[in-house]
Amino acid sequence: MLTDIALDAVGTDKAPEPEIRGAILACRTLPVRVHLIGPEPELRDLLDEHLEDEGEDLPIVIHHASERIAMDEKAAHAVRTKRDSSLRVGLKLVREGKCAGFVTAGNTGAAMATAKMVLGGLPGVDRPALATPMPTSKGNPCVLLDVGANVDCKAQNLEQFAVMGEMYARSVLKIARPRVGLLSIGEEESKGNELTREAFPLLKALPINFIGNVEGRDIFNGQADVIVCDGFVGNVALKASEGIGRFVRDVLRASLTRTVTAQVGALLSRRAFNEFRRRLDYTEYGGAPLLGVRGVCIIGHGSSNEVAIYNGIRVAHEFSRSGANERIEQAFAGRPKPRPDHGADATIQ
Amino acid sequence: MLTDIALDAVGTDKAPEPEIRGAILACRTLPVRVHLIGPEPELRDLLDEHLEDEGEDLPIVIHHASERIAMDEKAAHAVRTKRDSSLRVGLKLVREGKCAGFVTAGNTGAAMATAKMVLGGLPGVDRPALATPMPTSKGNPCVLLDVGANVDCKAQNLEQFAVMGEMYARSVLKIARPRVGLLSIGEEESKGNELTREAFPLLKALPINFIGNVEGRDIFNGQADVIVCDGFVGNVALKASEGIGRFVRDVLRASLTRTVTAQVGALLSRRAFNEFRRRLDYTEYGGAPLLGVRGVCIIGHGSSNEVAIYNGIRVAHEFSRSGANERIEQAFAGRPKPRPDHGADATIQ
Repeated sequence: MLTDIALDAVGTDKAPEPEIRGAILACRTLPVRVHLIGPEPELRDLLDEHLEDEGEDLPIVIHHASERIAMDEKAAHAVRTKRDSSLRVGLKLVREGKCAGFVTAGNTGAAMATAKMVLGGLPGVDRPALATPMPTSKGNPCVLLDVGANVDCKAQNLEQFAVMGEMYARSVLKIARPRVGLLSIGEEESKGNELTREAFPLLKALPINFIGNVEGRDIFNGQADVIVCDGFVGNVALKASEGIGRFVRDVLRASLTRTVTAQVGALLSRRAFNEFRRRLDYTEYGGAPLLGVRGVCIIGHGSSNEVAIYNGIRVAHEFSRSGANERIEQAFAGRPKPRPDHGADATIQ
Repeated sequence: MLTDIALDAVGTDKAPEPEIRGAILACRTLPVRVHLIGPEPELRDLLDEHLEDEGEDLPIVIHHASERIAMDEKAAHAVRTKRDSSLRVGLKLVREGKCAGFVTAGNTGAAMATAKMVLGGLPGVDRPALATPMPTSKGNPCVLLDVGANVDCKAQNLEQFAVMGEMYARSVLKIARPRVGLLSIGEEESKGNELTREAFPLLKALPINFIGNVEGRDIFNGQADVIVCDGFVGNVALKASEGIGRFVRDVLRASLTRTVTAQVGALLSRRAFNEFRRRLDYTEYGGAPLLGVRGVCIIGHGSSNEVAIYNGIRVAHEFSRSGANERIEQAFAGRPKPRPDHGADATIQ
């Protein structure tokens, strides 16, 4: 019994090559049927080329979508006007139950907006959140959310992010009792800004393993499995990490090249940096799930290669079989409805 | 003519050894007289030991302070109760005009609170800000502010940070026309949270080289000389950068050790990582100035070594002679008083 996964074939910067290769890789090794979404004639030709080489009969089908939302397009406008975009066609397959999940490496803002519009939110969830698995020195990923879906949050949004992130870590990443931290600027409960100080007691009252405030450096040291923050702070932390990661790598590479003989240096660089890249590779974790929508939507980086696409499909497959969304729904069904004025004094908006 | 600089002798984790060594280093090479602040008998003995070895007559004087505020003490309480702390004694020398600047590598929160209390704010500045020079791939540092003095900011605070940061970059770092960016989550003016969207037009209207919104990764790529943000976001970005920097270094070191023979690896690690450490070393930049107080106060990292202390003294010396504070004062004197209700709708508080 194969799981049907829809894949945006025109998402990556080099689309559709990485998508087609990633789909083939996934169909070879996972119990999935991949639905490629994009311009049918072009995809058909390319797919035939690749499959001709292999002589394989793989469970890959193509759904035509005439429009593509580019990386630099304004999400709100593009989502409204491009009614036959690969995002919308793919997510409709999920809504109609024809696919168990959707994977894209395209415009993140447009993907989130389309997913919210087409799939709708899970009952009880005020705002879906984008969750990014970050690499840690302990080996286990740390799920950081939100990283950009919601720039101005209320305390009750962070509370819901905690519930969703914990459930995802438990159901999909198979962590028995995920440690959930609140991103702040000091460990004590009293440290932080208005938002985190208000969110702290809400998270403390949840039936989760809340470990209190954590700091920026704790994203990478493996002390937490889930870290909750508003989307502005999360996005800055994510981008700053990408920036310093690249900087450190460049500086070290230059230092190595200068301090050893050229041959040894070249050899070393190749081996060590290849291994380094594998360990640090965010794409190994398969993209960021959008949590809180009715269905599975995984959003990858525009620079995703075929392995990243493969991992996105793998994560969508695991997510869809994990029952995480059903559990999130149950968690919210059992909770009292938030009062409309709840936390209104401290809202950032 | 020597410049008098007060130095907290009991700030670093290994105090007072790095402080005494750093003071000696500074007095040997810079036109400064260093006032060591701390327990006099102990400092006298240690200083004599070091000077005996050298047989030098250096311009170092000692001011007794009977109390020390530890790293883990709550700033507000410690500042109130420890009335003879090294922080207070040192900053009083600045207020009384006996010293041109103060340097500490002690408790950051306590140092900021004491500086605000003892020195007071510059006229027109609502809130002082802690500015950290960050290393960039282009070689020039990027001044990030605020990194923790103000967790909940109004748009007009960010506007003032921009004025102060720009003036500091111009006067002390000698950058002719500093490029000032607003830390956000997208380049367009419309991107960001309520706070940054309100701050954007204020910064745009300033007589500075405002380059618009920048993202987390731009802290390290040298595209901006000054980046403005609220203290919560700045602190998370700073700590996340420290965390990923350490993580990347550890992963690369492990990769190197695994992929080359032990001997070559050890040699390489030593040379390359030493050079790497120098380039990435935040302490090379001499600590973080607290901008907006009446006087010069430089706050370094608790792990500062003698070179970092030396650099802190060097920066305090340059800052005090730069006229930056006078120019900041002039900049605010020429500006209309902010209306009390200005930006009240969008305040985070």
